[in-house]
Amino acid sequence: MARSTGAGPARRIVVVGGVAGGASAAARARRLDETAEIVLLERGPNVSFANCGIPYYVGGEITDRWRLLVATPERFREWFGVDVRTGHEVVSIDPAARTLRVRHAGGEDVLAWDRLVLAPGAAPVVPRLAGVGSPNVFTVRDLRDADRLKAAVERAGVGHAVIVGAGYIGLEFAEMLRRQGLDVTLVERLPQVLRTLDPELAVRVEEELRRHGVDVRTGTTLEGLEAGTGVVHAVRLSDGEVIDTDLVVLALGVKPETRLAADAGLALGPSGGIVVDEFMRTSAPGVYAVGDAVEYTHAVTGKPTLMPLAGPANRAGRIAGEHAAADAAPSMSPVLGTSIVRVFGIVAGATGLGVEAARRAGFVARALFVPGNHHAGYYPGAEEMWLKVIYDDATRRLLGAQVVGGEGVDKRLDVLATAIRFGARVDDLASLDLAYAPPFGSAKDPLHMVGFIAENERRGLHRIITAEELALLGGDVQILDVRTPLEWAAGTLPGAITMSLAELRGRVGELDAARPVVTVCRGGQRAYYATRILRQLGFADVRTLTGGMLSVDALARAGAGSATSTTNLMEMTR
Amino acid sequence: MARSTGAGPARRIVVVGGVAGGASAAARARRLDETAEIVLLERGPNVSFANCGIPYYVGGEITDRWRLLVATPERFREWFGVDVRTGHEVVSIDPAARTLRVRHAGGEDVLAWDRLVLAPGAAPVVPRLAGVGSPNVFTVRDLRDADRLKAAVERAGVGHAVIVGAGYIGLEFAEMLRRQGLDVTLVERLPQVLRTLDPELAVRVEEELRRHGVDVRTGTTLEGLEAGTGVVHAVRLSDGEVIDTDLVVLALGVKPETRLAADAGLALGPSGGIVVDEFMRTSAPGVYAVGDAVEYTHAVTGKPTLMPLAGPANRAGRIAGEHAAADAAPSMSPVLGTSIVRVFGIVAGATGLGVEAARRAGFVARALFVPGNHHAGYYPGAEEMWLKVIYDDATRRLLGAQVVGGEGVDKRLDVLATAIRFGARVDDLASLDLAYAPPFGSAKDPLHMVGFIAENERRGLHRIITAEELALLGGDVQILDVRTPLEWAAGTLPGAITMSLAELRGRVGELDAARPVVTVCRGGQRAYYATRILRQLGFADVRTLTGGMLSVDALARAGAGSATSTTNLMEMTR
Repeated sequence: MARSTGAGPARRIVVVGGVAGGASAAARARRLDETAEIVLLERGPNVSFANCGIPYYVGGEITDRWRLLVATPERFREWFGVDVRTGHEVVSIDPAARTLRVRHAGGEDVLAWDRLVLAPGAAPVVPRLAGVGSPNVFTVRDLRDADRLKAAVERAGVGHAVIVGAGYIGLEFAEMLRRQGLDVTLVERLPQVLRTLDPELAVRVEEELRRHGVDVRTGTTLEGLEAGTGVVHAVRLSDGEVIDTDLVVLALGVKPETRLAADAGLALGPSGGIVVDEFMRTSAPGVYAVGDAVEYTHAVTGKPTLMPLAGPANRAGRIAGEHAAADAAPSMSPVLGTSIVRVFGIVAGATGLGVEAARRAGFVARALFVPGNHHAGYYPGAEEMWLKVIYDDATRRLLGAQVVGGEGVDKRLDVLATAIRFGARVDDLASLDLAYAPPFGSAKDPLHMVGFIAENERRGLHRIITAEELALLGGDVQILDVRTPLEWAAGTLPGAITMSLAELRGRVGELDAARPVVTVCRGGQRAYYATRILRQLGFADVRTLTGGMLSVDALARAGAGSATSTTNLMEMTR
Repeated sequence: MARSTGAGPARRIVVVGGVAGGASAAARARRLDETAEIVLLERGPNVSFANCGIPYYVGGEITDRWRLLVATPERFREWFGVDVRTGHEVVSIDPAARTLRVRHAGGEDVLAWDRLVLAPGAAPVVPRLAGVGSPNVFTVRDLRDADRLKAAVERAGVGHAVIVGAGYIGLEFAEMLRRQGLDVTLVERLPQVLRTLDPELAVRVEEELRRHGVDVRTGTTLEGLEAGTGVVHAVRLSDGEVIDTDLVVLALGVKPETRLAADAGLALGPSGGIVVDEFMRTSAPGVYAVGDAVEYTHAVTGKPTLMPLAGPANRAGRIAGEHAAADAAPSMSPVLGTSIVRVFGIVAGATGLGVEAARRAGFVARALFVPGNHHAGYYPGAEEMWLKVIYDDATRRLLGAQVVGGEGVDKRLDVLATAIRFGARVDDLASLDLAYAPPFGSAKDPLHMVGFIAENERRGLHRIITAEELALLGGDVQILDVRTPLEWAAGTLPGAITMSLAELRGRVGELDAARPVVTVCRGGQRAYYATRILRQLGFADVRTLTGGMLSVDALARAGAGSATSTTNLMEMTR
């Protein structure tokens, strides 16, 4: 494997862009070829930086700015022998001639390359509105943007911010700007925050935002920016309201930066990203691309997909760098898009596909909604969480998962992502060997509960109905609420028959075995017990409401802003 | 699937023992058969209780005793229609007659059964020493033991405790008794605490114990208990020391309680547990066994093994209960034995096999020792952790893992256990799709680093040497320490050649390319970079020290109490 020096003319590998996988590619190329000339061209002042840390830097949670500079030019030169050229912007590429034109403070050069790795990243989406160029309207892509925003936030007299877009970045800024003492209005076009979550989980996040004083406006678009003397002083929303503000942060997501690639004739894919193969090779010989500008293969759908996440970018960078240096590399694995965000005291994350995305991809997608605790209930401080696990009814294969709650959300999400990665069936969750001691989990972890419920259904012990399906269910159905009188006192479903689990065996004659029954409790467990009793007593059509009243409640709360059929749910049995 | 009543004579299912899977079996049996008569015989006063919570109850971290009673007799009667008989001790079983004899306050009965589920659990190991029956010498199996110990700990004037045995339970008691203000001496026969960990990880736990004032005596046995007026007032240790104390807690592990089963002629296995098949059926028709008294199939070795853990006990209980009621059930999955413990500010856990156990099982076991941080270093509060990952060199299959550190140990352990469960190769860790946001992880998680290192080795980019192998390595080796002058100032390996990574390319002529080299840095990353440089410059035999000086240091510290070859390591290059 050793490559001795002088075996041939040294290869020149040029990497364009340090962030989004470029730095990884350069470092990896050096691992494979000590003799290659490796040039890293970066238009910004830094080789690379931790862009995921920007909201926390603006919010003052990260106090040392230098810590965000994870890879310094010095280190790249000294450790890796990489010729780092910051302040160098590539303006065009000629794949046939294997050259590129690069602009810098001293003028413009033509640089030849044997292999080229593009890591252009993605640019913030900016709405076509007058005033977006105002000095107090921010998009945040690099450290200079972060510095500008941080200075604006900390300026005396600044008291209110509008954040447009309630995705991961928008939510992190909402928390961080609140942390800096600002009043925050969060504007989101969709009827919910965090589009990676289904509505009944997203509502938990929205409530957490409100609980911490964020003025959340879902189903609302930004219509205009009111600029006086060049500075925006108010925003105009689609509901007609005009909100005075001191600054605006645009967090509308990103679009792959493909201009250079497209101009050079590189193929772009259906989602607008650069097309690459398993070694991150583009359609042009010798040219690789990595990071937020490329289309990865989705691990569940197998389809090309944009995935602006640091993890895949780093992995892709390693592979491109290796292949560029050695003409061979391991294949890039398909990606699941596991993502997570902390929003004040709550954590929310998702992996793989949601229900709708799974159906669009052709799966017979089903979902379980399961409440659980981080650790054993008898040990103090157990924080509640809600899991939604999506699987294919035909193959039982796990397709995706969403988790919202407190401590331990990240753990469950990572375990689910790992299970999906290895092709697990939903039923397999029942037998996971998870670490249990009182501070860390339960003998029956929420993940086990998901597996138990699924396995029970697969084996015909019960049938699951989701709150959403229940809402759409018409006709003659008996809803049996088996909670306790204390729980009913706080409300039940309209028309529900109340009969606690302890009473059920004695009062089963009050139910009609020939008519369908849906069993309901708080979270789903007692309802399942009731279902089993009824099934064995000859009731032919009994279904268990997955997630119980917690799920109904979440859907109802989510429904306030969305077009779900919650009203049906609440009125169906009247 | 529905079973109507009156289809046949109701089956009587008797469950013996509520803890350790018995309660799960009874509840599950009811799910499958509404008409069965289900009797739960428990010799103690409770159906079941959270025995994993006992140390935290004694230590005052769990204040509500009732919370430990997770399954009350009332609930079992009302919800599950189970005839709970506490204070009932089974004294003999006649499998041929399908009867058992049970003793209770009112006398003795013979009870017939159609199916019998045994959940006898495991009993604390008690040394054969005079004085073990003294009122201030404790073994803790049930809540009454816990109450007695708690009262003793909280008694005025009690200032010192000896804990014998430094397994999970011993360590939990050590922390909890310190929490109650006692001085604690922890006595362990082995040269290290926590035998589930390899020495270089266990040493971190031992240091944490010392840091919190626990007097740790490894390599020491309890030789005698000095009892005055019936009460033990001192212990005599194998090193001759006599330590005055107020109470003694025996935490020497457990042995399967198999007397009833053996007397009834049930087959016992090589490890002394009850032999069961995949449905938890014993060798006697109609008799099942679950929990700490049975032999499970180990997920890695495929061999029968004792595994006194709550998770497998619960799962086995479900399966036995289902099969006892319905004559069919899913198979019990093989178990990995994932376990975890919190010891003051540190967390330690293991899953699958350690290096020695893996070699004994016939694997070509190799290990990677990788330091890492819970989350991105640029975000405040990242706690360090150490991972040791064991894999088979022939198949690359993951065999086991150990993790010690702060926040996030449980997450990495659960992900590793899940990966092992689905047959992952060590290289697969490189492409796990883990959730990354600054508070939760890194774009390159410690688990990814393990995968990267393994993959690099598999592809011939470098060869790994462990600190233990280095210690045993004789002869003519050049140890190259590529850390910085500041780091060398705190010490390096004797005879090491110091040359920072930045200097290496310029000073490589000082090394002999014909002689073997081992590259060393703090954690292994820079050493790998150095290895790559040397390999490409024609050095034929270069190995990277996995875990770097952190690993050497851990082994050296562990060596203080163990018979490892640390001295060799420190002297080999003189």
